[in-house]
Amino acid sequence: MSENKIPYKIYLEESEMPKAWYNVRADMKNKPAPLLNPGTHQPMTAEELEGVFCADLVAQELDNENAYIEIPQEIRDFYKMYRPSPLVRAYCLEEKLGTPAKIYYKFEGNNTSGSHKLNSAIAQAYYAKKQGLKGVTTETGAGQWGTALSMACSYFDLDCKVYMVKVSYEQKPFRREVMKVYGASVTPSPSMETEIGKKINAEHPGTTGSLGCAISEAVEVAVKNPGYRYVLGSVLNQVLLHQSVIGLETKAALDKYGIKADMIIGCAGGGSNLGGLISPFMGEKLRGEADYEIIAVEPASCPSFTRGVYAYDFCDTGMVCPLAKMYTLGCDFIPSANHAGGLRYHGMSPILSQLYDDGLMKAVSVEQTKVFEAAEQFARVEGILPAPESSHAIRVAIDEALKCKETGEEKTIVFGLTGTGYFDMVAYEKFHNGEMSDYIPTDEELAKYRAKLPKMD
Amino acid sequence: MSENKIPYKIYLEESEMPKAWYNVRADMKNKPAPLLNPGTHQPMTAEELEGVFCADLVAQELDNENAYIEIPQEIRDFYKMYRPSPLVRAYCLEEKLGTPAKIYYKFEGNNTSGSHKLNSAIAQAYYAKKQGLKGVTTETGAGQWGTALSMACSYFDLDCKVYMVKVSYEQKPFRREVMKVYGASVTPSPSMETEIGKKINAEHPGTTGSLGCAISEAVEVAVKNPGYRYVLGSVLNQVLLHQSVIGLETKAALDKYGIKADMIIGCAGGGSNLGGLISPFMGEKLRGEADYEIIAVEPASCPSFTRGVYAYDFCDTGMVCPLAKMYTLGCDFIPSANHAGGLRYHGMSPILSQLYDDGLMKAVSVEQTKVFEAAEQFARVEGILPAPESSHAIRVAIDEALKCKETGEEKTIVFGLTGTGYFDMVAYEKFHNGEMSDYIPTDEELAKYRAKLPKMD
Repeated sequence: MSENKIPYKIYLEESEMPKAWYNVRADMKNKPAPLLNPGTHQPMTAEELEGVFCADLVAQELDNENAYIEIPQEIRDFYKMYRPSPLVRAYCLEEKLGTPAKIYYKFEGNNTSGSHKLNSAIAQAYYAKKQGLKGVTTETGAGQWGTALSMACSYFDLDCKVYMVKVSYEQKPFRREVMKVYGASVTPSPSMETEIGKKINAEHPGTTGSLGCAISEAVEVAVKNPGYRYVLGSVLNQVLLHQSVIGLETKAALDKYGIKADMIIGCAGGGSNLGGLISPFMGEKLRGEADYEIIAVEPASCPSFTRGVYAYDFCDTGMVCPLAKMYTLGCDFIPSANHAGGLRYHGMSPILSQLYDDGLMKAVSVEQTKVFEAAEQFARVEGILPAPESSHAIRVAIDEALKCKETGEEKTIVFGLTGTGYFDMVAYEKFHNGEMSDYIPTDEELAKYRAKLPKMD
Repeated sequence: MSENKIPYKIYLEESEMPKAWYNVRADMKNKPAPLLNPGTHQPMTAEELEGVFCADLVAQELDNENAYIEIPQEIRDFYKMYRPSPLVRAYCLEEKLGTPAKIYYKFEGNNTSGSHKLNSAIAQAYYAKKQGLKGVTTETGAGQWGTALSMACSYFDLDCKVYMVKVSYEQKPFRREVMKVYGASVTPSPSMETEIGKKINAEHPGTTGSLGCAISEAVEVAVKNPGYRYVLGSVLNQVLLHQSVIGLETKAALDKYGIKADMIIGCAGGGSNLGGLISPFMGEKLRGEADYEIIAVEPASCPSFTRGVYAYDFCDTGMVCPLAKMYTLGCDFIPSANHAGGLRYHGMSPILSQLYDDGLMKAVSVEQTKVFEAAEQFARVEGILPAPESSHAIRVAIDEALKCKETGEEKTIVFGLTGTGYFDMVAYEKFHNGEMSDYIPTDEELAKYRAKLPKMD
């Protein structure tokens, strides 16, 4: 494989980086359903949303029309510090698998947050700064989003209050410390600083918290403190808009070398990575310009696409957030032990949910031990130690490449490698020691949570 | 800073990557002193060295004549998976400091080993494979080198036995797990598997080990097991040769944009990073083609350049390795608590020692808390969370840039950012909590170790 026409890593020039985000909603015939006020069940107005979110971000959230939204120069300057990210040709993996498939991955892990989350964090921090805010609040589970937001806030000199699920706060002290290096305050949730935190602590003494509870705390603090707003790292339309930078760079890199993708694969938790990666490809598909097989990969332990229902549901367990129409398992659903912290969310991006419902993409679920097998195989030949979340996409990319080996098809497979697993070594250790389990929820369990979905009449 | 002529990150094209390593010894008038047999005090012959090291690596170790040594295609292919590394213009740091200086850093942390160590690990693994060996042994302290070697051995399907200083094995379980993902066996040192390990355990029950002891164990295992050789991540001439890829890429990137460096700064433990970074610049200096101010930065707690002596000394505490002439603090020297695990070695590369003795470079020592202040400042504006080792270079780069602010000089400063600090969060936490100390050895202490240097008559 000495002298390949296609390099191992395709890096765009700085001048080739996207100058505008792509808003896939503009090309969708069936627009994603609007967020609803949980009390009135009426669509949330910009005014209502601006109590919680920054004004410019609310405008982006509600914009179903404009296909391109300019990336402000300040954000483009920050992007230049860690972007463009490489599109890597997985020559070594192809050789190891003996497949005729051509495998590419867009690697988003070359930054200290360790994932693609920084793409939206810096945008949200920028608009908060532009609005003259003092700071922002957010929740974090595994810590990737909290780390990304801490970095972004540090850059724009904004206060950053992170509510970290208590069990993660205690079990992932290093993530917590990284956030502190960037000047964020990190509070274990549920805390005694908020009304909802006090209530939950009183009702469930000794609870180790949940993402839904941390969201409710962060929203409460944002709403009660003048000069603060709440920001979120996934699910929302605005987040997928910012993350379109992943897909735009991927497409530009493929186009530069005249490569046509056949299949695009991404892991899906709330949808931030998958939505960003596929956006421009989905746009071509929606406009009838090209066709792609698009596959969302989710954990079998938290199968919102493959076993959830498409319905209005709460985004948080505290039920203070707007209702979103999405593929959901129910907002009380707690997935069993699953080390892919970024894929434990009960719902799915409204945009992706609509696209999936319209049959424009597929979804598969994979079991955790199979995911770690793929992760280790990938690490040993491609060098990069992948995040458990990203490894869901690796699993399916390998499976698809092996299918090509059987059929002889020379498919071009592109997958999103969202990040690195350096802070996930406890999970790798469990995998090695044979202590990792694959619990899949039963139909009865899922039905129980589904029964609690809000009644929409 | 919107439209800069110099991009934030300069990436060479794959075709511009070095095809040969540069051997600075070829241009040195005063060659580095040879390794000596510890028994006879005669220069080690190739035959003697081949009992411990791979044959091709011995040839490189002894080669003081050839300026360029071709990089085998297999190694160049591996390099393409994580190289070229970016040369980054620190626009944000410059702005924060308000300095007229232009600051660049060569960032070697974008790979799973987290540092530049992979550059030599893959070369050493390649030659071991080429020789038909079963595997290699090595020691590791903080774990960067062990991780890099594990990755390299996994790629070439070689067995990899790592002896990890016991205190690190226990305190850095994540590094250990990363090595296991890549299939290495990791043994806490001193172990009960070797004669030297048993002896040390008997003499010092409960000892938590030292790098010198781990070296002795790894060498013993390599010598006693057919099909195994010992490999080392720093100090040796061969390692500096492989690491010249850092400097060659740096120089090519600067040349591509017509930039002339005034000052080159690197942290120095055993010298692998500094030696590699400065090699081609030092070559120009030695040949009288250009001048550069070159600065080695070491911890005040382990000041081999600034307070050591230039003399023959043992490379390990077990005294089984050859003698090397180097700036040394004495092979029994144990530095006080110092979180830059990669800078705790008692000696310094013989090549760098000779260059320093010839007045071709300077050295400064810096205290740990000042280093972490610089690390945090850097992280907050440049995004990357630096390794404690690398942060020694950041400290001096910032100090020099601030001097430029006073004098108005527009110096071009280039420093080596050897790696990331993701596995060093315990140190960052201590820094934040005000629990970090700055112990500097007294003259009396240093004299005590110096008195034990081997007598060379």
